[in-house]
Amino acid sequence: MSKFRLDEVDLQILDMLIDNTRIPFTDIAKKLLISAGTVHVRVKKMEDQGIIMGSSLSLDYEKLGYSFIAYVGVFLNNTSQTKFVLERINEIPYVTVAHVTTGKFNIFCKIRAKDTKHAKDVIFMVDDIEGVYRTETMISLEESINDKKRLMHTIFRELED
Amino acid sequence: MSKFRLDEVDLQILDMLIDNTRIPFTDIAKKLLISAGTVHVRVKKMEDQGIIMGSSLSLDYEKLGYSFIAYVGVFLNNTSQTKFVLERINEIPYVTVAHVTTGKFNIFCKIRAKDTKHAKDVIFMVDDIEGVYRTETMISLEESINDKKRLMHTIFRELED
Amino acid sequence: MSKFRLDEVDLQILDMLIDNTRIPFTDIAKKLLISAGTVHVRVKKMEDQGIIMGSSLSLDYEKLGYSFIAYVGVFLNNTSQTKFVLERINEIPYVTVAHVTTGKFNIFCKIRAKDTKHAKDVIFMVDDIEGVYRTETMISLEESINDKKRLMHTIFRELED
Amino acid sequence: MSKFRLDEVDLQILDMLIDNTRIPFTDIAKKLLISAGTVHVRVKKMEDQGIIMGSSLSLDYEKLGYSFIAYVGVFLNNTSQTKFVLERINEIPYVTVAHVTTGKFNIFCKIRAKDTKHAKDVIFMVDDIEGVYRTETMISLEESINDKKRLMHTIFRELED
Amino acid sequence: MSKFRLDEVDLQILDMLIDNTRIPFTDIAKKLLISAGTVHVRVKKMEDQGIIMGSSLSLDYEKLGYSFIAYVGVFLNNTSQTKFVLERINEIPYVTVAHVTTGKFNIFCKIRAKDTKHAKDVIFMVDDIEGVYRTETMISLEESINDKKRLMHTIFRELED
Amino acid sequence: MSKFRLDEVDLQILDMLIDNTRIPFTDIAKKLLISAGTVHVRVKKMEDQGIIMGSSLSLDYEKLGYSFIAYVGVFLNNTSQTKFVLERINEIPYVTVAHVTTGKFNIFCKIRAKDTKHAKDVIFMVDDIEGVYRTETMISLEESINDKKRLMHTIFRELED
Amino acid sequence: MSKFRLDEVDLQILDMLIDNTRIPFTDIAKKLLISAGTVHVRVKKMEDQGIIMGSSLSLDYEKLGYSFIAYVGVFLNNTSQTKFVLERINEIPYVTVAHVTTGKFNIFCKIRAKDTKHAKDVIFMVDDIEGVYRTETMISLEESINDKKRLMHTIFRELED
Amino acid sequence: MSKFRLDEVDLQILDMLIDNTRIPFTDIAKKLLISAGTVHVRVKKMEDQGIIMGSSLSLDYEKLGYSFIAYVGVFLNNTSQTKFVLERINEIPYVTVAHVTTGKFNIFCKIRAKDTKHAKDVIFMVDDIEGVYRTETMISLEESINDKKRLMHTIFRELED
Repeated sequence: MSKFRLDEVDLQILDMLIDNTRIPFTDIAKKLLISAGTVHVRVKKMEDQGIIMGSSLSLDYEKLGYSFIAYVGVFLNNTSQTKFVLERINEIPYVTVAHVTTGKFNIFCKIRAKDTKHAKDVIFMVDDIEGVYRTETMISLEESINDKKRLMHTIFRELED
Repeated sequence: MSKFRLDEVDLQILDMLIDNTRIPFTDIAKKLLISAGTVHVRVKKMEDQGIIMGSSLSLDYEKLGYSFIAYVGVFLNNTSQTKFVLERINEIPYVTVAHVTTGKFNIFCKIRAKDTKHAKDVIFMVDDIEGVYRTETMISLEESINDKKRLMHTIFRELED
Repeated sequence: MSKFRLDEVDLQILDMLIDNTRIPFTDIAKKLLISAGTVHVRVKKMEDQGIIMGSSLSLDYEKLGYSFIAYVGVFLNNTSQTKFVLERINEIPYVTVAHVTTGKFNIFCKIRAKDTKHAKDVIFMVDDIEGVYRTETMISLEESINDKKRLMHTIFRELED
Repeated sequence: MSKFRLDEVDLQILDMLIDNTRIPFTDIAKKLLISAGTVHVRVKKMEDQGIIMGSSLSLDYEKLGYSFIAYVGVFLNNTSQTKFVLERINEIPYVTVAHVTTGKFNIFCKIRAKDTKHAKDVIFMVDDIEGVYRTETMISLEESINDKKRLMHTIFRELED
Repeated sequence: MSKFRLDEVDLQILDMLIDNTRIPFTDIAKKLLISAGTVHVRVKKMEDQGIIMGSSLSLDYEKLGYSFIAYVGVFLNNTSQTKFVLERINEIPYVTVAHVTTGKFNIFCKIRAKDTKHAKDVIFMVDDIEGVYRTETMISLEESINDKKRLMHTIFRELED
Repeated sequence: MSKFRLDEVDLQILDMLIDNTRIPFTDIAKKLLISAGTVHVRVKKMEDQGIIMGSSLSLDYEKLGYSFIAYVGVFLNNTSQTKFVLERINEIPYVTVAHVTTGKFNIFCKIRAKDTKHAKDVIFMVDDIEGVYRTETMISLEESINDKKRLMHTIFRELED
Repeated sequence: MSKFRLDEVDLQILDMLIDNTRIPFTDIAKKLLISAGTVHVRVKKMEDQGIIMGSSLSLDYEKLGYSFIAYVGVFLNNTSQTKFVLERINEIPYVTVAHVTTGKFNIFCKIRAKDTKHAKDVIFMVDDIEGVYRTETMISLEESINDKKRLMHTIFRELED
Repeated sequence: MSKFRLDEVDLQILDMLIDNTRIPFTDIAKKLLISAGTVHVRVKKMEDQGIIMGSSLSLDYEKLGYSFIAYVGVFLNNTSQTKFVLERINEIPYVTVAHVTTGKFNIFCKIRAKDTKHAKDVIFMVDDIEGVYRTETMISLEESINDKKRLMHTIFRELED
């Protein structure tokens, strides 16, 4: 599937960016004993190839008043409505993740809300989309792990082998 | 719950960082007509308060050979093992998210793997943890939405009101 | 099943007490054109017969910080443990109702908690009781009806017929 | 969430009212070494603030011929009908509690009936409401706990700390 | 509920009829040291009171080519159709028992058929009734107990006490 | 499967016995224009072949105080215990039918009891059998059909063709 | 059910063909000490009787890029559509097996696809058939056994006894 | 995934073998206007590469007395027993297919049996394997499609493109 080759320098750059997306290129260059220009070229190349798609800020949702997380399974009247419903779901900012899934649900979403009352409002927004037949909600009592960095480091170690 | 106050400048800085975590502070300063030093102070303050927890790189997992996503529901023999099992799960890099949940599962995880065969290996790693009684897996056919930015912008608009 | 007879006066007294348990007996007496002593005797008789079991205050739990309601289904390792587990559940004040039920659960409880985090603690208290095999939780998004008065009035109207 | 302050005297008054809603204010006054007028003022204040919402009589339903308790899960055709259906359910006196819930049901009710035949009639009343798609019933074999007093005392002890 | 009284003679007669519905009244009379006329009178009385509703032959269905037994759970579009659907089910002779039930099904039936193919035809007959939404079938691998006599003897022993 | 031949006379005799097991052989003989001896010989033959296994009385359980019917699904710890558990179930007279089944249950029983409380006792008897892991109960709100006669007549009409 | 007789020679021929459908008749003849003509006659007879229905090639699907196997349970709007839907399913070459089943599904299919994305397309093809209400998919992590030869040899050993 | 190249001649040979595994190589040669030796070389090559794994006879199981098909879902005590249990299942010839699966089951099998009684025996064989916790069975009422040829032709058409 991987239709490109990353060399060891690329992987070392990625390893550093994963830990801190805001690290200056000069710092990376110093650590890898290469020029900042090379770092720039390599990062640009990985962005053009679509490997690096961007970066995102990690905020403490609890401190911002959004401590309620739930998973909502969506049943559709008909699978042909999947695309249309996903577009409507995409208009609800409280839905942060959505998958087309196998098993009992057609679509499976993750939502963040302020509290039980707000969660009810968000779930009702999803329920009210045309083509949505029913939803089932599973509530998170605690988000114990939310960390892609371990996976990214593992992937790069595998690519280096 | 929010035990601090963010003013409009804080929120505008956050709004810009959400879209591009690597944006130079001088660019932010220019746009907001404030000094780069002020940007630095404000970001530092929000990091110290724990509102900004860091940033993470967005990679194209498919291009890196990790196109398989699944949700794994975990049943424990006994709820008192929750903490122990979560620590073991945390050692499996292919698990990127884990929640303690209500409903039928004790723990609910998201995994990323290379293909069906690799997914089987990852699921078996979870299954083999002491205290895990059974698991049930739901496979993603397509990750249609994975975007926290819309939520972050919404939260800041609400805080501004 | 009803091994006693309530006459019309009894039922009228009950009807008034249902609406206001603190109504003075003299007020009841005045409305029914009987003596306060008769009211006293009748209420005493119904207490002795066990029809009136007491009275309870209705507080606004939300205002007291207890806005989280959930139903918890309990699976036991063995039905013979039902009595023992109910005694342990009875020691958890956050459980306000518990039933032995048919269907998939052995015991079915209603709990009130402060928030998601507190609910998790309460559910874990139930889960940790010896003999409890697993629990499944259903969260209330809104308590829309909680009113026994309509039923009580209906029962008395039926008894009068 | 609690937008008011209860002092120790308020909590002691509540503690006594919880155990016996009919206790004369003079008795409370004597025990707390305050005037009956003060008791009256405090109770009035808590009623005005909406903390005390009223009181309800506890009757022995079994002795009154209502020994059958069931929980009825309601599936709606569409979530937008929730409010309408709850209004119809509110007209059935045999439904004493109703919640909007997460999980598989849209609405979850508690009913009391005379016997199996009567329960069937009540369930059919719910089933016949426009917008109700299906119901699922779980029958109580025994109501082992139904006691809010323990919770109330616990809440007040917490507020005192 | 039992609105009549059976004396010991009635119960002894029933006990004998349960074991052999074809036993001549003269044999019963001889054993109980009463006249055959008395037996006749008592049986007539119990038939008139509706206690004895008739008798049924026990055939070996396996020997008659009907060895396939299944339980079919029926979901209706709407509970108001229950009576209508039961009338249609009653026209299918292969359905020997049908209940209105709590839980996930609206109606629950027992069917007897010749083999898998015939069972499919019978299930499709039920499925094709107007108002039937879906059915779920559970197949019997062995009918291990089918015996009302033990219950009847137990009931009479209880009535004698 | 049917290893014997029933001629038209046999089937006509069976048809009459199904409607009334107590019909005198002389009445059957008269209607079929054959001798009572022939009827006797034929019935004896069908009893010896095991086609006629006996007869059972139909009582009105409701009038006898047994108005509660439930289906109990039994999960075993291990399928090898099936025979042992069925023998224990056979000692409980309130269980009138039991099947080894496919699907989620190992054994599926029908019970009759006096009321909810008694049903709880019977279910607990089943639950307490060694090797029984859990039970799930579905309660009948109404036994709408319980009639083997239609099936028997259908079988005989088929055999005549 | 078997309305024909296979003698020992037939069974020995079948036993050899099962292991290798391409074995020359002269080889079979030599091993069984009969003429090749006899082998030919016997095989022809078994083909005419419909016992031998043909033969099929066993390919390594994984090597051909079809490593994804899933089971898809199909719910229909109405059972009367079964035949129509099966005809539509039969036009999808990726469905290799389909059954009309008892239990929760109306139709149960086995599909082979290239990968998760292709599987999604195939499942959507099934979902889009008129009359299909919903589908549920269970994914194979490994096809551990796919071997009819053991069964065939067992059947023939039984027929020889 | 496909680590080899099939040319058009290979694919045309496969297309013919799929329809009739017993077709003589000389017939294939004649149709493709190539020598029989070439056919032989090509088939040999595809066997050596493991693309052609063999061939299997298609028998009419119904005519051989094996008309009962069921799918058996197996729950294990622990996933680490998967390999051991599959080896035991492999010793039961009535199991023709077995998968390690996602979802509620650990292993999912297809069985063929003579009738309900025989199916019960086969299911009990699976249930009795050490490490098997429970099984759930879904019975086929009709095998409507069992045809890999359509898929094979489709695969080859795709490879030709």
